[in-house]
Amino acid sequence: MAEAAAKILEESVGKTVLIRLKGGRSLRGKLQGFDQHMNLVLEDTEDISDTNSIQQLGTLIIRGDNVIIISPPPR
Amino acid sequence: MAEAAAKILEESVGKTVLIRLKGGRSLRGKLQGFDQHMNLVLEDTEDISDTNSIQQLGTLIIRGDNVIIISPPPR
Amino acid sequence: MAEAAAKILEESVGKTVLIRLKGGRSLRGKLQGFDQHMNLVLEDTEDISDTNSIQQLGTLIIRGDNVIIISPPPR
Amino acid sequence: MAEAAAKILEESVGKTVLIRLKGGRSLRGKLQGFDQHMNLVLEDTEDISDTNSIQQLGTLIIRGDNVIIISPPPR
Amino acid sequence: MAEAAAKILEESVGKTVLIRLKGGRSLRGKLQGFDQHMNLVLEDTEDISDTNSIQQLGTLIIRGDNVIIISPPPR
Amino acid sequence: MAEAAAKILEESVGKTVLIRLKGGRSLRGKLQGFDQHMNLVLEDTEDISDTNSIQQLGTLIIRGDNVIIISPPPR
Amino acid sequence: MAEAAAKILEESVGKTVLIRLKGGRSLRGKLQGFDQHMNLVLEDTEDISDTNSIQQLGTLIIRGDNVIIISPPPR
Repeated sequence: MAEAAAKILEESVGKTVLIRLKGGRSLRGKLQGFDQHMNLVLEDTEDISDTNSIQQLGTLIIRGDNVIIISPPPR
Repeated sequence: MAEAAAKILEESVGKTVLIRLKGGRSLRGKLQGFDQHMNLVLEDTEDISDTNSIQQLGTLIIRGDNVIIISPPPR
Repeated sequence: MAEAAAKILEESVGKTVLIRLKGGRSLRGKLQGFDQHMNLVLEDTEDISDTNSIQQLGTLIIRGDNVIIISPPPR
Repeated sequence: MAEAAAKILEESVGKTVLIRLKGGRSLRGKLQGFDQHMNLVLEDTEDISDTNSIQQLGTLIIRGDNVIIISPPPR
Repeated sequence: MAEAAAKILEESVGKTVLIRLKGGRSLRGKLQGFDQHMNLVLEDTEDISDTNSIQQLGTLIIRGDNVIIISPPPR
Repeated sequence: MAEAAAKILEESVGKTVLIRLKGGRSLRGKLQGFDQHMNLVLEDTEDISDTNSIQQLGTLIIRGDNVIIISPPPR
Repeated sequence: MAEAAAKILEESVGKTVLIRLKGGRSLRGKLQGFDQHMNLVLEDTEDISDTNSIQQLGTLIIRGDNVIIISPPPR
């Protein structure tokens, strides 16, 4: 992963990010770490796919090949 | 990513690009950065998939394997 | 697999993790080992996809490309 | 990309090519560049998927993994 | 394939394993060999996808990218 | 691509081959070249998917990951 | 492809093998060659997907990523 995406991800560590996954799931959590495959570690994760029924998922590892979009927190 | 695509992307940094993703989503945003996998960083991104309901998405990282087409700004 | 995910996985060895697989299956088992492709070895695994009918699967090797999410145990 | 395909693509630079993409889309445009992944840069691109409603798309980068077939211009 | 999965597979050679494949097929057979892609060689294989109609398949090579889960024999 | 397939392809250059693609399309054309990814260059190509309506496609580059089967000419 | 599968394939050269492909097609033919991607060359191939209508396909190259299972001849 080159500098542009990695720089944003590094700035987002410890902050809340929104992840959209292949298959339609959306997750929100505090970014704890990431790697060059966009494997992600989130803390205090919520599954917000269904906004009427948000699920608490705690700490998660997401395999990077499932990721479509990562939204860092507004600056 | 060889020179042809990278040259267009380099010229497009700081400008508005249109991205078509696998699954039918279309995004428009200011290109902040990219890498050899076509991972992209966009600012001031809008989801324009449904032109009747454009969503503001702010800054985004797009994992490159989801990209079909990138339209740079007209020159 | 870089440090963030590997560190969580290392801390989870010998503990119960929840795995969500592509295709909708969910498994719960004691993590015995893992590798850089997220190939996983689980012991005392249960298929909890249908919570009305939990299946005992014993020891399993999961090929990493099927993994969406790994939930380590709460700390 | 070995010599056979690359030679045809090199001869096609500056000329109009037809591209068939996975998912059914067909594009026609002037080939500006390409690389070993078959990432393509097209100018003056038209989406000709629906021949009753051709869309002007201008300059495009196509990520190579979406490409099924490239038709170079007749010689 | 790192040590955890390979160790289980090595211990399973000559023993009966259960394989679940993408697409829903389940096979049971004696593991004769494997490699780092999880390509597998099974002997005396049975297709147990439909438990009302078990098919004898003899010796098989399974291409690893089709594998979801390998269940080694109970210890 | 190892010797077995490459040898058949080398012997088929300049001759008519039949190509079956993922998605159901069948093409017939004179093989002009190929590479180790099974990217193919065909001349005088016909789309014979619908035998009631054969389409002339001329020279084509086929990206190898779309290929299921290549039938060389009878010897 | 490590030794286990390659050994079986080497022993099967010149003999009839059964190939099951992604998408449901089954082929039977004499194995002429193979490589480390499981690209296969078959002679005197028959499409036996529909056992009521077996089709003669002659010599074929199968791109390895389409292969699910290879059944060598009984020993």
